[in-house]
Formats: sequence, C-alpha cells, structure tokens
Amino acid sequence: MARPYYIGVDLGGTNLRCAAVSAHGRVLMMKRAPANAHAAADAVTENIVARVVELERAAGERGWGRARAIGVAVPGPLDLRTGVVLVAPHVAAWRSFPLKQRLERRLGPRVVLENDANAWALGEHWRGAARGRRDVVLITLGTGVGGGLIVNGHMVHGHRGGAAELGHMTVNPDGPPCDCGSHGCLESYASASGLRTLVVSRLRKRPAKVPRKYLDDGGEFSVRRLYRWARAGDPVARWAFSTAGRYLGIAIASLLNIFNPELVVLGGGVSGALAFMRAPMMAEVRARSFSAVAVQCRIVRAGLGREAGVVGAAYAAMHSHRSS
Amino acid sequence: MARPYYIGVDLGGTNLRCAAVSAHGRVLMMKRAPANAHAAADAVTENIVARVVELERAAGERGWGRARAIGVAVPGPLDLRTGVVLVAPHVAAWRSFPLKQRLERRLGPRVVLENDANAWALGEHWRGAARGRRDVVLITLGTGVGGGLIVNGHMVHGHRGGAAELGHMTVNPDGPPCDCGSHGCLESYASASGLRTLVVSRLRKRPAKVPRKYLDDGGEFSVRRLYRWARAGDPVARWAFSTAGRYLGIAIASLLNIFNPELVVLGGGVSGALAFMRAPMMAEVRARSFSAVAVQCRIVRAGLGREAGVVGAAYAAMHSHRSS
Repeated sequence: MARPYYIGVDLGGTNLRCAAVSAHGRVLMMKRAPANAHAAADAVTENIVARVVELERAAGERGWGRARAIGVAVPGPLDLRTGVVLVAPHVAAWRSFPLKQRLERRLGPRVVLENDANAWALGEHWRGAARGRRDVVLITLGTGVGGGLIVNGHMVHGHRGGAAELGHMTVNPDGPPCDCGSHGCLESYASASGLRTLVVSRLRKRPAKVPRKYLDDGGEFSVRRLYRWARAGDPVARWAFSTAGRYLGIAIASLLNIFNPELVVLGGGVSGALAFMRAPMMAEVRARSFSAVAVQCRIVRAGLGREAGVVGAAYAAMHSHRSS
Repeated sequence: MARPYYIGVDLGGTNLRCAAVSAHGRVLMMKRAPANAHAAADAVTENIVARVVELERAAGERGWGRARAIGVAVPGPLDLRTGVVLVAPHVAAWRSFPLKQRLERRLGPRVVLENDANAWALGEHWRGAARGRRDVVLITLGTGVGGGLIVNGHMVHGHRGGAAELGHMTVNPDGPPCDCGSHGCLESYASASGLRTLVVSRLRKRPAKVPRKYLDDGGEFSVRRLYRWARAGDPVARWAFSTAGRYLGIAIASLLNIFNPELVVLGGGVSGALAFMRAPMMAEVRARSFSAVAVQCRIVRAGLGREAGVVGAAYAAMHSHRSS
C-alpha cells in the first residue's frame, strides 16, 4: 500500500546519509555511503541522486511508492531563494553551484535545500530535545560551530537563508583567528578545531604540532581523546574544555538576552564533554544574562544523535511540499 | 463622526508622551507631560491614566469617540504574558508591578504593554525606516542601548517578552563594567553612559570627573556637546566615538551572522554622531560578518524621531485589539 514518506539527505564531509522518513518523523529506512566530497561538482551531485534512486527503489519494493519531496542538508551557506550553494567547506567544487536545479533535473521538481545546521535543528525541534517548544536556540559544537533558531515556533532563515551562523558571533574581539576571516568567534574556542588551537597555544607548540596522546589512530586531533585525558585529570585537556566552556557561556548569555528562549539545545561531538565545560559556562551565563530571562531557560543536550540531520531535512521537504 | 483610533503612551525618564494614532499610523493628537518617574508606584500609574483620560476627552470633543485600545511603552523588562513590569530603571517604585492590571482597573480591559525599545522598533517598522521590511535589526543608542527584532515580518518577543536586549550582548568579555552587572556589554561603549566612561578613562579621571567642556548647562554629560567637540577636531571626543563605533560594528557583525537581516536601523541620540562612528563600525562589520550576508544588508538611521515610541505603542495596541 502506498505510504506517504519524505526523503532526507545529509551530506557531511565523510558520510552521505539518506533516509526515508514518515510524516510523523519516524526513520523508516536509512542508507549510508561515502560522501565523495572531493570529487567534481557533478560527481557529488550524482552520488546524491544515486542514493535517492536506490532508496526509492527499495521503498517501491515495499509498495510505498515515490517520496513526496526530498530535503537535502548542505554544509555551508546557501541562497534559499534560488537553491544555489554559495560555498561548501567540504565540497571544494561547489562554489555558487545551482544544486537544487541540478538535482531537480534528475529527480523532478520536489527538492528542497536546507543548511545542515538548520536541518539538525529542525530534526531536534520535530522529534528531539526541542519538541513542542516555541522559542529555542540550538547550537551544534562539531568540527565547526553551527546553529539553528526557532522563534515563535518557526525556524529563522533571515533575508536569504544565511541566518543562525552562531559559530561566528564574536565572543572575544582580540581572540585567535577563525577560518571565516574574523577573530575570536565562538567557533575559535568551542569547536574541535578551536580546542586543537587552545591545546597547541597552551603548550606553546607550533600550530601543526599536537601532542600524540591527543591524536586518534589516523593521526588526527581527536576531541574524544582529549575528553578521555580530561577524565584522567590531564590539566591541559581540562583547561581546554574549561576555556571552551567559558566562551560558550559568553555566547549563550548574549543569545539569552537577544532571544529570551525557553530552551538552549547543545549538540555535536564537543557537547559530549559538557561535564568539563558546564561550570565555567554557567558562571558566564549567570554573570552576563538578565536573571529573569536566565531562570526561564533550560540548557540541555540534543536528543537525536546523528539522525537529526536526515530527519530535519525530511521535515523541510514535508513543510515545503505542504505549503506549495 | 466616530473615527477609529488607538492611544500610544511612551513613558521615559523625563517625559510622558501620549498620542492618538490612526489605524494608518498617523499621529492625530499628541500630549506631553512630566513623567514624574520618582513618585510612588500608583502616582506614576495615575499620571498615565490622567493623560489618557485627557486625550480621550479631547478626542470626544471632536466626535471621535473612545480609543479602541491603549498601548503603553514601558522602560525595562516586563512579563508580557502577565502584564507585570519586572524592573523599570527610571521608575524606582515599579518592581514586579502589575501595571496592566492597575491600568485596566481604571481604563477598562483594553491595555497592552510593550517594552519601550520594542515599541520604538514597531514604530519604525510600521511608519519609519523599516517600513515593509521582513527581517530587520533595530538598535537604539540612547542613555542605554536597546533594540527590536523583526523576523519574517513579526516582532521577536521571546518566551516571556524579554527578547531584543541588544545592549547587553557581550562585545568584549574583559570590557568595563555595565549597569546590568556584566562586563563589556555593547551598552558599556555605544550609549551616552558608555561614552562618558570612555572619556573619563581616556583622560584618566575619576569616574565622577568629566571635563566641563563636555557638560551641558545643567552640569550633565552631554553627547551633543561631545559631538560638537568631535566636529571641532577634539581628539578625545573623536576617539570616544570611534571606539563606540568599533564595538557597535562588532555587535552588528554578530547580529548579521545571527539574523541575515536586510536592514539594520540605528536610532537614539548617540546615532546622531554616526559620522564619527561609521568608518570603524564598517571596518568591523566587513572583517567579522559573512560577506554574502553583509552585502545584502543596508545600515541606515531611524526615520521617525521621538514619535516612534507612541506610534509603535499604538501599533501594539491595534495589533492585539484585532487579534483578540
């Protein structure tokens, strides 16, 4: 029997996730494949098309029919009005790339793009920690720092879809340089790359030199390793998380004064180390936000894990399908 | 002939403004009276009641009938749901004061409260510089710094009405103390009191000692005087405005990355000195915001002047009257 479902696609630096999601936000089927992010622009696009076709074929075999709409979560800023990806940090070949148009040429006029952090936030709002809340600030602390904003029950996209770049709020005007070209962004502290910078600066190492104990088996800086050392009492690891927590608290305090939210949701790999960030974070929140506003707000961890992106992308697709 | 109109009240530290405003946002009649802000809680309330009654009597004489609803712009945070003023900086006696209830006891069930900066922003959005725009950040640079946020064409109030305290974004975590208890808020730089602090710190004076040339005839620090000296080439005055401009730019850059607005509106007395703030402000905006987002946004001065507050308060009243 035909069953209404939506497809959510989440394109990360490493993995491409693709899921069939019910109208109630349940993941019915999920496929994962390498993202192939370093390939040519059209090859990355075809990779998405192939996964969607595969998923629809499997859904077809179960008699579910075709997906009503397809939402694609894309890393990096995009123009929501035109469906053009402006820059994608992990997909070098996508610069001013008309992704929506290219996908619709192959999949039909039913594709919706969404920024990946926004898709994550939509997922958490639909089925996760922010379910049923009207005013929520969501911050994802991963390789970089992204965010999503729910105001009056709706996502804030801004004039052209560029809103909620919470990782690029200035938290210290004279802080370390950020990849975005600015200095002292939240991302320069409370992301994996920020923590890496904190560690090498504390140890007075050259930027390229991270002590081996903080590296994973592939030789890459690992927040998980840093966290393990923090648990073992390592002072450098503890200091790095505590510093990240301090600047995260400064950003959250500003966001409370700006939005008066009922909930702040923290997700992403770095939020796994919240235990070592919470005390300095809360000290800044208390010192810098209006107390009446702060007491109305809870700060919690995300609820959905890695599924949030595909669920939120499917939600964006469903929402646009219904309103069209 | 009966004519539909709304009353807007704007309670400042010095003046109480009270206007009859048409459904198209035209000021039909305006009364001004001393605010009497230092009186007892009920005396300040009665002062508002008396001005409203006076205005309705005058409107009655012209055959316009009774105001459909009354909007009151209140300085300081309030709980919009309950109509309670939490704290009002200029009205010492209003602490957790049920203003809406007290006013409705005297004027009937047709009173709406709004934060004064929000009312100003609503006025600018209805009839001023932000007319017809859907995504706008409005910042008022006065004795303190306040703000208003329009997202998707609607004002952002937050969970309980405490949103848009843009003056209390942290722009420098180790900056000078702010009246709110925090450090390095936007208000500590880009307000009249922030400029005063900058001047005395630059001259290494004690906080109480402002050079006489920057004082008005009443012996108070005067932004207007500072501006006049800046125009005359005075290096301290120029440095103060330039520093305020720098931190204003840091705040605006964060707000662009958060909201991707199409317009930023600057109002309040300090914005009169924008000529001396603009270059350092724009340098920070360019260095710290995503360029795609920045080029979509214009930064302009407010359009309505002191009328904006009563017009916006009347708009809040009209809006709530229509949706009730």
